[in-house]
Amino acid sequence: MTNFNPTLTTDEILTKDAHLIQSFANLDALKQDSARTAIVRGKGAYVYDSEGNELIDGIGGLWCVNVGHGRQEIIDAVTAQLQQLDYYSTFYNFTHPAAAMLSEKIASLAPGHLNSVYFSNSGSVANDTAVRMLHHYNNRLGRPKKKKILSRIGAYHGSTHLAMAMTTPLYSEGWDTAAEGLVHHLKCPNAYREAGDMTEAEFLDFLLDDLREAIESLGAENIACFVAEPVMGAGGVIVPPEGYHKRMADICAQNEIKFVADEVVTAFGRLGHMFASEDVFGTQPDIINTAKGLTSGYQPLAATIVSDEIYDVISRPGGMFLHGMTYSGHPAAAAAGLANIGIMESEGLPQQVQTTGKVFENSLRALEDMDIVGEVRGSHFMMGIEFVKDKETKEVFSDEHQVGLRIAQAAQKRGLIARPLGNIAILSPTLILTEEEIARIGVILRESIAEVTREVR
Amino acid sequence: MTNFNPTLTTDEILTKDAHLIQSFANLDALKQDSARTAIVRGKGAYVYDSEGNELIDGIGGLWCVNVGHGRQEIIDAVTAQLQQLDYYSTFYNFTHPAAAMLSEKIASLAPGHLNSVYFSNSGSVANDTAVRMLHHYNNRLGRPKKKKILSRIGAYHGSTHLAMAMTTPLYSEGWDTAAEGLVHHLKCPNAYREAGDMTEAEFLDFLLDDLREAIESLGAENIACFVAEPVMGAGGVIVPPEGYHKRMADICAQNEIKFVADEVVTAFGRLGHMFASEDVFGTQPDIINTAKGLTSGYQPLAATIVSDEIYDVISRPGGMFLHGMTYSGHPAAAAAGLANIGIMESEGLPQQVQTTGKVFENSLRALEDMDIVGEVRGSHFMMGIEFVKDKETKEVFSDEHQVGLRIAQAAQKRGLIARPLGNIAILSPTLILTEEEIARIGVILRESIAEVTREVR
Repeated sequence: MTNFNPTLTTDEILTKDAHLIQSFANLDALKQDSARTAIVRGKGAYVYDSEGNELIDGIGGLWCVNVGHGRQEIIDAVTAQLQQLDYYSTFYNFTHPAAAMLSEKIASLAPGHLNSVYFSNSGSVANDTAVRMLHHYNNRLGRPKKKKILSRIGAYHGSTHLAMAMTTPLYSEGWDTAAEGLVHHLKCPNAYREAGDMTEAEFLDFLLDDLREAIESLGAENIACFVAEPVMGAGGVIVPPEGYHKRMADICAQNEIKFVADEVVTAFGRLGHMFASEDVFGTQPDIINTAKGLTSGYQPLAATIVSDEIYDVISRPGGMFLHGMTYSGHPAAAAAGLANIGIMESEGLPQQVQTTGKVFENSLRALEDMDIVGEVRGSHFMMGIEFVKDKETKEVFSDEHQVGLRIAQAAQKRGLIARPLGNIAILSPTLILTEEEIARIGVILRESIAEVTREVR
Repeated sequence: MTNFNPTLTTDEILTKDAHLIQSFANLDALKQDSARTAIVRGKGAYVYDSEGNELIDGIGGLWCVNVGHGRQEIIDAVTAQLQQLDYYSTFYNFTHPAAAMLSEKIASLAPGHLNSVYFSNSGSVANDTAVRMLHHYNNRLGRPKKKKILSRIGAYHGSTHLAMAMTTPLYSEGWDTAAEGLVHHLKCPNAYREAGDMTEAEFLDFLLDDLREAIESLGAENIACFVAEPVMGAGGVIVPPEGYHKRMADICAQNEIKFVADEVVTAFGRLGHMFASEDVFGTQPDIINTAKGLTSGYQPLAATIVSDEIYDVISRPGGMFLHGMTYSGHPAAAAAGLANIGIMESEGLPQQVQTTGKVFENSLRALEDMDIVGEVRGSHFMMGIEFVKDKETKEVFSDEHQVGLRIAQAAQKRGLIARPLGNIAILSPTLILTEEEIARIGVILRESIAEVTREVR
């Protein structure tokens, strides 16, 4: 690209950046020269670093830039909204057109009985909010003990004190989590690592039994909800056994346990549908939380979408909705959401993903012939590649090999950003990739994996 | 105003808005026709509702629109940033110029030893993050028990599960809060309601003794931090006794308890300085959390600013910073922050507030001659008016009188938005008010209070 005109050199950016605390980082390692990559520009499926390198944005920002970078319609919508009304709250008796319009739009897209929307600005807070609302719901129903949360080993639900408690215990190492005892972690539906010799049907029964045992042991009268990502994301892109969500939801419903779907990643086209819960997995959650693809990352926005039944209880006379974030339904963020959904609808992006996402999935699955590729898993534009030392025994590489990190670095050298997660590489690109670009990603990954294979074998 | 061209009627907005869940609201009451006010446009110190009424924005959006509505410099900065780079994360090894530049700018404005910034998108999450970081800090130092939080009756620190636990217990009624036992609430520094016959110095000693007794009883080795708003906001605009923060901070320092200043409201000019902790109250907190005025509300952004000492511990070899929000340091939000601070600096807005804020304060204090005005309190552009049935005895109006709400409604009818909070009216306007506009607010409030006085006496 020739029209990139940097105003700051890499050194200048990194000197200033010494004051910034990065997320999910080894802060000590980042103190080293050249440890940080400064992204300075984005266009379509690509971003550009401060050294002028063009990189395929293989992680879509952070599972979020679904419609691609630099979409003028979204930028224009944000600008126009800021010109009209830069900010007003949705506190007390106030509202504004952008928040009202987006809440109606989301209600029209979500499963039929999900019609009330609370906005926040991150998936973490959407999940935190869902639990707070369900606790209040049970208080309103005179069930003050029905408060525990069922989550799962491997889950990622965010980074507030409570959302982190709902996340897999791995992420709490050296950090504290809220209210020990409030969250119970069920078994992880990772067939590659957990199913052993079981068939898929047997593994499903094993997981369902785990849920039944947890309810038996904790008592249904003490459990508010089961929260689950349709496809686990940061836990390693885990697609559960066929029928899992439907069967889990049925058991929850029998025990008056609310089913909360964390669709922060899976909604807005990544799996080929606006929401995955009903269209992909056949479930009708009581609450869907979403973020990321809702604005394709152009603005910080998240939504907690609740069922009519829950809303009826929490909006009854006799109680106050004592919850609120200043930027709930921010005008510019709501405008970005509307414009982003408008693009998805006018371009038929979810439908397109049903084809191109499968091409992407198959392109990555083809890497399973490589020596250190243990499993390629996921769905459509949400994929993970797990690397192993031995394909037969599934023996893992030890941490010091840093296989995931080295493959990500080898890919970045070749023009592709992938996300390392231990011995897994995650790919969650923009949804606008052409078949040519998909093929190029496959080639880069194959070369990068081959290079690292030579180094570690 | 003649150039307002609504595209939706009030009825159309409110029909769509039936899908939106408002914050801190009586959701049942909002179901009634005309209970909601739709704000459709803003300019300078004013906003306009969907019926075309011009209203002085007496609450500055929500204590946040410090530089006023419709500032082209901020809008241009957001647009330009979105054109350049709509989104990239600050996760792992990534950064981008806008986040780097704003972190450096904030470090230059905050007290000298506060040089590292973690960004989030709401004050709630900034406070939640501060506690998570301090828990990790104490884990790194081998003090896993040093985790409790000292907060205060009357405090407002936000609405995540943990931030709400740090907030005054009043806001938990019917709602649950995180980790009972994690938070201890000290006495409220509200002299009007709590000091009785004590002098200011005696009241201060009483509050300091409360802190000493809490440390004695809980054990300093179990207490991570004391968190306090320099001036309590949603608790009723409480300015503590002279010397309070300095003396509280000293006791904390003697006990290795971190002093966390919640400057979500008080920073960026509202009290006449960029930060209030050092310049107004003479303290050097270990952490300052801020939001609102940081972008004047144009974009969702918050910051947790930590001391060199804390950063040195959490960035030592041997640990990971396992915390992160997708939109931490969002490019458009960071650009808005930079442009907003640029306006404040080039126009000398904090300095201007040292004069006009005092005029505002005095204008409101003049209302103390009215029969039902018990106390006017606050500082500069952060003011509260407490209404009482009897000025001598300070007898309160019963809830059914809804005195605060009725005065706010009477003011809105006359062209001023004020925020009712029980028997208190809160004024936290934009910081750009002229003396003429300040005088008009005084007149509207006097007329509105007089009208309601006639109804309730």
